[in-house]
Amino acid sequence: MQNLYQFQTAERIIAGENSFQKAADHISLLGTDIKNILLVTQPSMKRLGFADELKNQLTNKGIHVDVNIQIQPEPTLENIEEVFSEVSKNSYDIVVGLGGGSILDSTKILSVLMTNDCSIESILGTDLVQHPGIPTVLIPTTSGTGAEVTPNAIVTLPDKELKIGVVSKHLYPKLVIMDPVLTVSLPKEITAATGMDAFTHSLESFISNKANPISDMFALESIRLISSSILEAYQQGDSVRARENMLIGSMYGGMALSSAGTAAVHALAYPLGGKYKITHGVANSMLLPHVMEFNMDAVVHRLSLVAEPMGIITLGMSKEQAAAKVVEKIKSWTYHLNIPQDLKEYGVKDKNLEELAYSASQVTRLLNNNPKTVEMKDMKMIYKKLLA
Amino acid sequence: MQNLYQFQTAERIIAGENSFQKAADHISLLGTDIKNILLVTQPSMKRLGFADELKNQLTNKGIHVDVNIQIQPEPTLENIEEVFSEVSKNSYDIVVGLGGGSILDSTKILSVLMTNDCSIESILGTDLVQHPGIPTVLIPTTSGTGAEVTPNAIVTLPDKELKIGVVSKHLYPKLVIMDPVLTVSLPKEITAATGMDAFTHSLESFISNKANPISDMFALESIRLISSSILEAYQQGDSVRARENMLIGSMYGGMALSSAGTAAVHALAYPLGGKYKITHGVANSMLLPHVMEFNMDAVVHRLSLVAEPMGIITLGMSKEQAAAKVVEKIKSWTYHLNIPQDLKEYGVKDKNLEELAYSASQVTRLLNNNPKTVEMKDMKMIYKKLLA
Ligand SMILES: NC(=O)c1ccc[n+]([C@@H]2O[C@H](COP(=O)([O-])OP(=O)(O)OC[C@H]3O[C@@H](n4cnc5c(N)ncnc54)[C@H](O)[C@@H]3O)[C@@H](O)[C@H]2O)c1
Ligand SMILES: NC(=O)c1ccc[n+]([C@@H]2O[C@H](COP(=O)([O-])OP(=O)(O)OC[C@H]3O[C@@H](n4cnc5c(N)ncnc54)[C@H](O)[C@@H]3O)[C@@H](O)[C@H]2O)c1
Ligand SMILES: [Fe+2]
Ligand SMILES: [Fe+2]
Repeated sequence: MQNLYQFQTAERIIAGENSFQKAADHISLLGTDIKNILLVTQPSMKRLGFADELKNQLTNKGIHVDVNIQIQPEPTLENIEEVFSEVSKNSYDIVVGLGGGSILDSTKILSVLMTNDCSIESILGTDLVQHPGIPTVLIPTTSGTGAEVTPNAIVTLPDKELKIGVVSKHLYPKLVIMDPVLTVSLPKEITAATGMDAFTHSLESFISNKANPISDMFALESIRLISSSILEAYQQGDSVRARENMLIGSMYGGMALSSAGTAAVHALAYPLGGKYKITHGVANSMLLPHVMEFNMDAVVHRLSLVAEPMGIITLGMSKEQAAAKVVEKIKSWTYHLNIPQDLKEYGVKDKNLEELAYSASQVTRLLNNNPKTVEMKDMKMIYKKLLA
Repeated sequence: MQNLYQFQTAERIIAGENSFQKAADHISLLGTDIKNILLVTQPSMKRLGFADELKNQLTNKGIHVDVNIQIQPEPTLENIEEVFSEVSKNSYDIVVGLGGGSILDSTKILSVLMTNDCSIESILGTDLVQHPGIPTVLIPTTSGTGAEVTPNAIVTLPDKELKIGVVSKHLYPKLVIMDPVLTVSLPKEITAATGMDAFTHSLESFISNKANPISDMFALESIRLISSSILEAYQQGDSVRARENMLIGSMYGGMALSSAGTAAVHALAYPLGGKYKITHGVANSMLLPHVMEFNMDAVVHRLSLVAEPMGIITLGMSKEQAAAKVVEKIKSWTYHLNIPQDLKEYGVKDKNLEELAYSASQVTRLLNNNPKTVEMKDMKMIYKKLLA
């Protein structure tokens, strides 16, 4: 637990079923003279009609909207640069991101590129963005990365086979709209993977060396909400109640990680995304139980505290037993959510483990948060468990 | 429970023991060219050395600081206007408020008076402030009003014998510093009254018609923290652990009320402050159990849910029993905290009840949040219980 701690988040959050239907009302309150908006979104949002719905809402208020759907899932630096060179031909008052974490992160980066004369390369790292960007509005459609409330944006560097983050207070949005209805269409596989990503944010924040009273509250409430609803959201995707719990739970996960940081699970996941295109949520959920087992002696007490919010009845159990039940429950989720368990499916071989572990060992920003030191040999051992 | 809900708070919160010692470092990050700061504070802060400590920190960074200690507890409109006419002779880059809710509220109002050409009178009410104010930094020294994280500022109108609020998104501060060490010196009586005010914020938010998943999280965690520490903070004022729980608990209370609003307790408390100079926390804690008893049939379920975070063992109890235990525990606190129970001590007489009830009935902004309609006759009956 950290003695000094801090909290910062999106300026304003609007939430609830059908809140998206009033999106333009809230967006137009952001300034007195909004004329041009860039809407960054994904083909799936076009297909589902959400992109047009928002464009219509804004057009009806006399606002001109350009729509861009060129950002790829887990975008590379080059992908975002290409989109930037396209959209920077015009000037915008606001940039709206409507989509999953990939869209939200890209929106944040585009916003600061528009006002800072810099390359993406030059802002990779912490606090390297000089000036505030164009105001952003973030509307998540997965549950999720929590990216709508964090100061982080992740890009893939394919030549270095790495995923790396921009971290800056200038990435916080002005407005966030959290409408569970947007997530009802999330395919099962993405519901599972992004839900486990959200859970990982909260659990890692809770055991982080930087955990603190504020991050703990968000982490525990996130764990409670996600645990109550992850299987239901997966099995009955049209349950708006379960979808709302997942969406608010993932937002709290983002708030927790903004304050406490993620740790070894995320550090080990990044090379799997960078080199083997394993999606972020899948990589995290494959690793989560194994990293927790590795961490166990350092986190028994903290893990035992999440048993109850996970709905585990701990009456008469020792801390060790309760902590073990937590890991067991996570494993049972990954089973019921049909999350892949074998890195071989993605082309990973024994001989690649050294290189993977080396890449992960570079993610010191996150490894420093881990309550137990993770050596190269430990990382290889953890990856190895996924090559069974 | 409300379906659509929102959350907004201070831009950045720094917290923890001795965080005040780095106040100037955080304040100077707010802008690149900070030259002049107005520090609004109270005589007690001068006496305790905190005002000079902060001034020195800032002066060492080459920042000029003017200190004003003219704001009175529970300030009148005229008091704030006088201070404004004094300080508006100079121009400031930032206004810092160091003190209890009275100071924080006044700082917020001074900040918007500095940039809006308007009287205080013209902004009383909701959303009447046109433009953002000078950036503010709020450092609470009571636990507390939660005013450091709310969009509200309360002023006393002595001619109307009323307390009334300015509510505006432009009142949120840029930075909040939460250091429990500043509250160790709080006298017992103020510890009790402000602690009960904080508890009232959370309990009223939790039973408010506008309660929602976000406000509920803050309210319940606030209730948990305050319940665990209010008697300890009162009896052993130098327990920094108890002080920190109270301080963070009162901040969460502010976050809860920003989203869900307070209700009948606060509505009935305002005339007691406006007419009889009963301090805000005392008025709230006198009224709290009686208003909850009046509300009981509408709030049994919700009250039963706060029993556990209050540390009440509810095994085998019905909802009604658990809810009754909650009210009982609140009563036992007011007893142990030596909070006055008799309005006669303040000069209130039977014949004044009509007028008091009429004043309270005007506070419709808060009465609308109450889960049960409160008629004039109900209000008189509630006040009457405090004339025993
Ligand atoms: N900034 C942060 O704090 C943070 C935290 C964690 C992860 N991330 C990053 O976020 C990215 C992952 O984001 P993600 O997991 O949200 O996935 P994503 O944005 O990559 O989207 C995955 C797929 O889901 C589809 N999709 C999204 N919403 C949909 C909906 N409602 N209905 C149907 N299809 C939908 C998209 O079109 C896409 O094909 C990664 O790059 C990861 O590194 C960022
Ligand atoms: N804005 C909001 O959301 C909100 C909410 C609730 C109440 N309020 C308002 O806040 C005001 C009450 O504020 P309050 O209860 O914090 O009290 P306060 O600011 O009036 O201070 C009460 C007394 O405590 C002293 N004091 C403060 N900190 C001290 C410390 N650390 N050590 C020693 N003495 C200290 C002060 O000098 C003062 O004499 C009322 O006007 C009330 O209406 C505002
Ligand atoms: Fe993640
Ligand atoms: Fe209050």
